[in-house]
Amino acid sequence: MAQQNIFDNEIFFDGYKKIRENKVNANNLFEIPALFSMLPDLEGKRVLDLGCGFGEHCKMFVDLGATRVLGIDISSKMLEIAKAENSDAKISYMNMPMEDIRHLNESFDVVVSSLAFHYVEDFAGVVKAIYSLLDANGIFVFSQEHPFVTCHSSGDRWTRDESGKKKYLNLSNYGIEGEREATWFVDNVKVYHRTFSNIISTLIETGFSIEQMIEPLPTEELLETHPEYQDLLHKPDFLLLKTKKGS
Amino acid sequence: MAQQNIFDNEIFFDGYKKIRENKVNANNLFEIPALFSMLPDLEGKRVLDLGCGFGEHCKMFVDLGATRVLGIDISSKMLEIAKAENSDAKISYMNMPMEDIRHLNESFDVVVSSLAFHYVEDFAGVVKAIYSLLDANGIFVFSQEHPFVTCHSSGDRWTRDESGKKKYLNLSNYGIEGEREATWFVDNVKVYHRTFSNIISTLIETGFSIEQMIEPLPTEELLETHPEYQDLLHKPDFLLLKTKKGS
Repeated sequence: MAQQNIFDNEIFFDGYKKIRENKVNANNLFEIPALFSMLPDLEGKRVLDLGCGFGEHCKMFVDLGATRVLGIDISSKMLEIAKAENSDAKISYMNMPMEDIRHLNESFDVVVSSLAFHYVEDFAGVVKAIYSLLDANGIFVFSQEHPFVTCHSSGDRWTRDESGKKKYLNLSNYGIEGEREATWFVDNVKVYHRTFSNIISTLIETGFSIEQMIEPLPTEELLETHPEYQDLLHKPDFLLLKTKKGS
Repeated sequence: MAQQNIFDNEIFFDGYKKIRENKVNANNLFEIPALFSMLPDLEGKRVLDLGCGFGEHCKMFVDLGATRVLGIDISSKMLEIAKAENSDAKISYMNMPMEDIRHLNESFDVVVSSLAFHYVEDFAGVVKAIYSLLDANGIFVFSQEHPFVTCHSSGDRWTRDESGKKKYLNLSNYGIEGEREATWFVDNVKVYHRTFSNIISTLIETGFSIEQMIEPLPTEELLETHPEYQDLLHKPDFLLLKTKKGS
């Protein structure tokens, strides 16, 4: 199985870099605060970051007290930036698809992954590998695109009213799992849809206990300054889970 | 707070009775098999059934070995039928809203509820009461209307193509929790919408561990004989959870 490496595509990479440089975006407002709120105390901890991209999170883990951080990413272009902008004696970056982490000869206290799993076809295999790499009572926290987003297969995503305002999310094929082709800067970005119950069941069957689930939503306060996020009340963009390996 | 007792409304009652008498319906094909697949071995167990309705499940719990079954329901009309058609020396029926179970002076090994929680406003309160009534390692299994169903607030539920075929579920206000008015045989049936993460968080924060989640979907085999359930691939009707009280 060839893993998708859309992040080394130049058009995609430039588009992605631009969106991440903009400090007011859905990641910064919703996904990152939720992800970090789920992390345990990182003081003295060994952390694995799956799909670390530019390494911003790896650097923050060190700032939060982690003594060892391994960031892996399928994109060597991303890791070049990570090494240039977010290097630290406590951080190593490694270029590999996360499907290959079972080959790592190291154990961790915490595994984190931010918005990468929806690109992974073999979710169960990766979850199993994470379980093996974690010590007893290890914590695994991840975010991914919300299933309302990944299930989208074709046609318009929204039904709008006469004024152009988004009225309904056009939801279809939620129950049909597997590959979807999305357009995000470039065509043919492959995303893998899984239902809530598949995600939860895969984690539990592997041996993880579910500690927390978050679907970040805008507060009324935030909507006053950022009314453009009103649509999240119809469709959360992100799903986050915190799980724990049994002792 | 006055609990809704739509089941004692005569038009509703007759409509509901008719649908449950028809042996080929979504409950029999999807919800009941999933619910029973989640039950632990009931041999020698004390079972509480919340929203027991006509008592069919109570009778089945006895057939599966339960030595004590308490069925409670807000509708005295439903319980009249339960007592006439599904009575047993091991079963008691009690007319009370499930919001009042904290007053029960009895403990249980298993609490089951089939398609009743979406009528309950104070989910957290009921879950807390269930936790108190269960012995250590007790199991709590329930089904409810799927969040894609409960979130519906107004307008058409589906967008159809030219031939009238259902194309999209019109999903809106998923992130806005609380009361919805539905029409089911009669107008103004009150349903309470909660997000996946609210349901999961409430259970975990109360002290339950999540053991299993099911969103029942039709198999290809079933669709050959019952093509009318194709729409469930867009929108599962039910959400089921199995949880366990910590020891």
